[in-house]
Order: sequence, then structure tokens, then C-alpha cells
Amino acid sequence: MSDASRSVGLRVRIVGTGLIGASLGLALSRRGFQVSLADPSPTAAALARDLGAGVLAADLTGPDATPELVIVATPPDVVADVVAVELTRWPDAVVTDLASVKGAVLNALQDTGADLSRYVGSHPMAGREKSGAIAAQVDLFEGRSWVVAPGPQSASRAIDMVRLVAEAAGSAVVVMTPDEHDAAVAAVSHVPQIAASLVASRLRDLPSSAVALSGQGIRDVTRIAASDPGMWTQILAGNAPAVRSVLESLADELGAVLAALRLLELSPDGGSVGARAVLARTVADGNAGHALIPGKHGAAPTAYATVIVAVPDEPGALGRLLHDVGEAGINMEDLHLEHGIGQPFGLAELSVLPAAAQPLITALSSLGWPVHES
Amino acid sequence: MSDASRSVGLRVRIVGTGLIGASLGLALSRRGFQVSLADPSPTAAALARDLGAGVLAADLTGPDATPELVIVATPPDVVADVVAVELTRWPDAVVTDLASVKGAVLNALQDTGADLSRYVGSHPMAGREKSGAIAAQVDLFEGRSWVVAPGPQSASRAIDMVRLVAEAAGSAVVVMTPDEHDAAVAAVSHVPQIAASLVASRLRDLPSSAVALSGQGIRDVTRIAASDPGMWTQILAGNAPAVRSVLESLADELGAVLAALRLLELSPDGGSVGARAVLARTVADGNAGHALIPGKHGAAPTAYATVIVAVPDEPGALGRLLHDVGEAGINMEDLHLEHGIGQPFGLAELSVLPAAAQPLITALSSLGWPVHES
Repeated sequence: MSDASRSVGLRVRIVGTGLIGASLGLALSRRGFQVSLADPSPTAAALARDLGAGVLAADLTGPDATPELVIVATPPDVVADVVAVELTRWPDAVVTDLASVKGAVLNALQDTGADLSRYVGSHPMAGREKSGAIAAQVDLFEGRSWVVAPGPQSASRAIDMVRLVAEAAGSAVVVMTPDEHDAAVAAVSHVPQIAASLVASRLRDLPSSAVALSGQGIRDVTRIAASDPGMWTQILAGNAPAVRSVLESLADELGAVLAALRLLELSPDGGSVGARAVLARTVADGNAGHALIPGKHGAAPTAYATVIVAVPDEPGALGRLLHDVGEAGINMEDLHLEHGIGQPFGLAELSVLPAAAQPLITALSSLGWPVHES
Repeated sequence: MSDASRSVGLRVRIVGTGLIGASLGLALSRRGFQVSLADPSPTAAALARDLGAGVLAADLTGPDATPELVIVATPPDVVADVVAVELTRWPDAVVTDLASVKGAVLNALQDTGADLSRYVGSHPMAGREKSGAIAAQVDLFEGRSWVVAPGPQSASRAIDMVRLVAEAAGSAVVVMTPDEHDAAVAAVSHVPQIAASLVASRLRDLPSSAVALSGQGIRDVTRIAASDPGMWTQILAGNAPAVRSVLESLADELGAVLAALRLLELSPDGGSVGARAVLARTVADGNAGHALIPGKHGAAPTAYATVIVAVPDEPGALGRLLHDVGEAGINMEDLHLEHGIGQPFGLAELSVLPAAAQPLITALSSLGWPVHES
């Protein structure tokens, strides 16, 4: 039996119809799952229903009202309580949750005496700045990683069912223990969030003429500093031990950098060779860490060639450029637009496989584009 | 007399023909300046000449050999020495430098007894990952901010001449004191660099399956972590007092976050309301700082609407999309491409003025693009 045929008709109950729950309802409904929706706010549940995420659980009766799988998509701080309630209420159903922290949820459940053979934590690596069902997207999970994090008691039937849902939503499943998951997201998500917030926070002390010097570097570093404080407080508090561990390692290295800077401040011209070595090693270690981040599609890091083109800031100009790139039969791996200040054009950085760079430069130059290889 | 006519024939000597010096030579030669090139490496100077950045200073004789303006574009750690030599060698010339640190250079010069009425420090906010004349670009400075940072002794004639060059290269001039400049770049450039390196460095401790969970957030935060350690050691060492000051403020707040996380680790369920408040305030302060960063073209921050489109990962697909955007007569303010892992498409986030979002969605939907407003 194929995954697709197994999924048809599976009765899935989604508890919590915010952005994540409603988006998953849309995705699973489209794939033929029988989705029912529940939320402490009847208005929120009705909105998700109206958007096409499923039917209201409250409207179901008989066998249809009994879910085979319950997906808890509530805010992180109530996830464990809701999972425990659902495990008790539906004694034959598998239950998963989508919280971005896994160890704390499992620990809390282990104190409840619930049947944990039917529980499997999971975490789709998807989201957006906006919240609520109104921001839901049927393709929110497509192409994202979805961590499935079984506990020691999780039954293989339960693990398989959660995996089925993740794949039906278009995600790539990654299986880890809850602790492995928490350590990973502390380093790749939670600590970067804190760092971005702390860097952005410094701008509050500057005159606006100084902030106006902000270039692409700080824009990239602080993009995620626009995230929601309430949500992030729950996430960071829920993963406190793992975040604390990674952040202490960062703070130790920051302390060494500060000590080196103080030495250089006292003795700018010499006697501080060791201080310069600390700064160089910090940047070099950052090089090494950065190089570990995979390229797109989960492939090993690839050194792409970058071709830079000046593009007039007018409707259609970038479209003409990328049309010309496509006509040349060349597939861009990435595209980055950089805008100057006070100038009517931007710089488009096209990343391509190294072998494609020269053909691309030749093709674009022949069409009159001002082009450079980086 | 217009700026353009004043610049024709101005004799400019560029000392240091790496990326920055050679790019400026290209830009000023195109604008009619008489550019001569000098570098400790004859090979480097000859390469810049061959690229069109100017003539070799060593080939000049008579009045042509006497510059009216000297631009020192050497690595930061020798800038002050080279400026002092040039001020002495050319007793009528104005001298500027392009180093990314200004106070330390001026302080070093004040000890030399040089004629500082003819010296004006400056700093074009431009650069790239690659180095050397071979990476030079005639448009490297176009649309960038260029800080002109006069010292207390700088003559207005000298300030005007440096401003003329910056504008001729296409930059927008910002006048600040050296200390104001150093405090600004510490916060908007140097501390973000350190933060990016420290976050990226943490990935070295993770298994590759964990690093593979890296999403767009950490990619953005760590993009500049790929920068050159040698160059950054010089920059950070040269701006040690200002960087130390901003970094200490960051470290203090980081300490408070760590203390809050330790409290929550000891008492996850309660008794740590104050700890949650620290986390929430950290993220909220980051929101406030992030909101201060100007939009493109130096304008005040604008809240753009984001329209998200799923784009197949095949040659020409993004070009077709942007062609269609252009046909709709809509000007994109920004474009961001996000690739999923293991999926044959990417998500294009188009930022447009809020009033343009609905017309864009209507236009793209009618052409069959899967589109969402963020």
C-alpha cells in the first residue's frame, strides 16, 4: 500500500488553529485526509474552517468524531498539558505536537502517567513572521525539514503515522532524539535569534546619522530580530538548558574577544600580538562554522561562482535580466539583490555553478548588461 | 563652476592598488580625473594600470608627477605611516585615506608633526569578499555611503576636494567626526561581524545532521562570517576602544539572558516570571533597534508588503516570474529567494509598496502563479 493511498481518509484532529495548525489543515485536506479542527477560540476554529483547513470537530458525531491521529499545534507553553488531555480522551489515537522544543514536553508528559507509546513529538522547521489562521499557507511545509523525535516509549506504528503526515505536507523527515533536536535548534535557531536581537538592540543607542550607515551586513545579521517577543520567550524558556549551554560557549569566546580588545586599547602599537591572534582565531573559527552550513536542497556545501550585474531600479528591469539568464539556459542557485543608498539601481548577485559563470557572463555581456564575476 | 568641470584633469595619486584603490582608479579615470597609481608591489600597480585604473606614478615626470590629491588605499595597519610620508613628500597636496577606522589614524598622525590642515580622513562603505585589483569594479562605490571625517585642523579646501572625489565615484557623502564615525561602524559593522562569527563558530560543535536543520535565519545571521580573518583583525584592532564599548554593552545584556536561562533551568514551571521578562525584553529591544534601520535609498523605514510565490527550480522560472511582475507595472522594493531542503522549488518573497500588493497578487494569480500575501 502506498503512502498516498494509506493517507486517504485518515481521520486527523488538529488542536490549535493558528498559523501552523491551519496551514497543516490546508495541506492535509488537499491530500485527502479527513481533518477536524479544534481551538479554545471558536472564532479561530471557524476561520480556519472557512479557509478550507477542515471541518469543525464540534460538528462531528459517531465514528467520524474519533480521530486516528491528533496533532497539537498550540503555543509551546500549553503543549504538554494539551497532549496529555488528548492522549486520555482518545485512547486509540496517536498524538503528536509541533512545538519547537521537544525535551521539555516529553519530560512534562512523563510525570502525567499518560500512555506514551502513542505519543511522538515532532517539529516542522517552518514558520513566518505573521501569525494566526489568516496567514495560513497550504505550502508552508513544502521543502522544509520536519524533525520527528520519538521518545523511548514511542511505538513504531506511531512514528510511522507522524512521518506519513510530515511527508504528505511536503516536508523532508529527519529523525532525532528529543535531546538531539533541542541541542540542534539551540545552535541553529535559538542562539542566532538572541544574537540578532542583541546586535539590533545596540542601534537604539546611536544617532540616526550613524544608523543610516547600516549596510547589507547588519541587515542580514538582524533580519530575524523583528520576531515576536511573546512567542520567543516561550521558545527560549522551553529550551533553557540547551540554549544556556550554547550561549555559555558563545559568552566565553566573547569574553576572550573583549579581553583582547582591552589589551589593544591599552597598547595599540604592540605588546598585544596575542590579542590580535584571539581576534583572528575568532573570525577564522566563524569561517569554519559557516562553511558547514549546507547549500540548498540539503546538498553538501558548494562553492558557487557569483556574477554581479547592475540593474536599473525600474519596473521590469530585474525581470528582463532573469529572462535573459533563463534564455541562456543557465540555472541560478541563488539570487541576492543589494540596493545602494541614493542611487537608482541595485546590484544583482547571481550564484551559479562555477562552470556556468563564464557562459553566463558572455551571454549577458553580449546583451549589454554591465556584468562582473565576483 | 560645476563639480564635473572642476574634476576634469585633477591630478589624483592613488597609493595602494588593491580592490579599493583599483576600483576607485577605474571610477575616477572614467570621470576625467588624471589618475596615477603607486603600490609597494610593482606587479600590483601594473595590473591596476592594465585594467584601466590609471597610469603608473613611476612613469610620470614634470608637473604631471605632482598630485593635487593623494588617496591612501593601503591595508589599515600601515595607513597612518603612508599618509605621513605622502603629506611630507607632496607639500601642496591634500591627502585622504580610505581606512575603515578613523580615530586611530588621526591620533597616530598627530604624533608625527605632519601638516594636518591638508589631511581629511574618509571611509567609503563599500567592499566585497574578494580582494586585489583583479576584483576591481568601476561601480564599487556607486550608491554607497562615503563618510568624510575631518579632523579639527582639516582645511575646508581639503574637505571639499575629498567630497568631490567621493561624489565623482557615485557615493553619497556623510560628514562626521572621526569619533562619531568609529562609534557608528563599531555598532553597524564591527560588532555584527563579531556576533556573526561567534554564532557560526558554534556549528563546529554539532553533528552534521543537526547543522542540516539550518534555515534562512542562521544563514542570514552568519553570511558575513565568511569574511577574511586577517583584514578583520586589523579593522577590529584599529577600532578597539569603540568596538569594546559596544561589545561590553552587548555582553552585559547577554549575561542577563544567561542568568534568566539558568533560573528557568532550575525552575521551569514557575518562580521565574522575572526571568521570562528578561527574555521578552531582550527580543522586544531587538525589535526596536531593528526598526531603526533605514530602507533602501536612505529613506525612512517603510513597511513593505510581502508577496510570496512558489517558483520551480528550473532555468528561466524566476525570470518568467519577474518578467510577469514587470509586465504588471509593479516595482519590487526587494526580492528574497528561499530554498527548501530536498524540494525542487524555491519561495520568492517579493517586497512591494503596500498599495501594490493586491494588484500584484491579482496579476500573478491570473497568470497561474501560486501566490500569497505575507
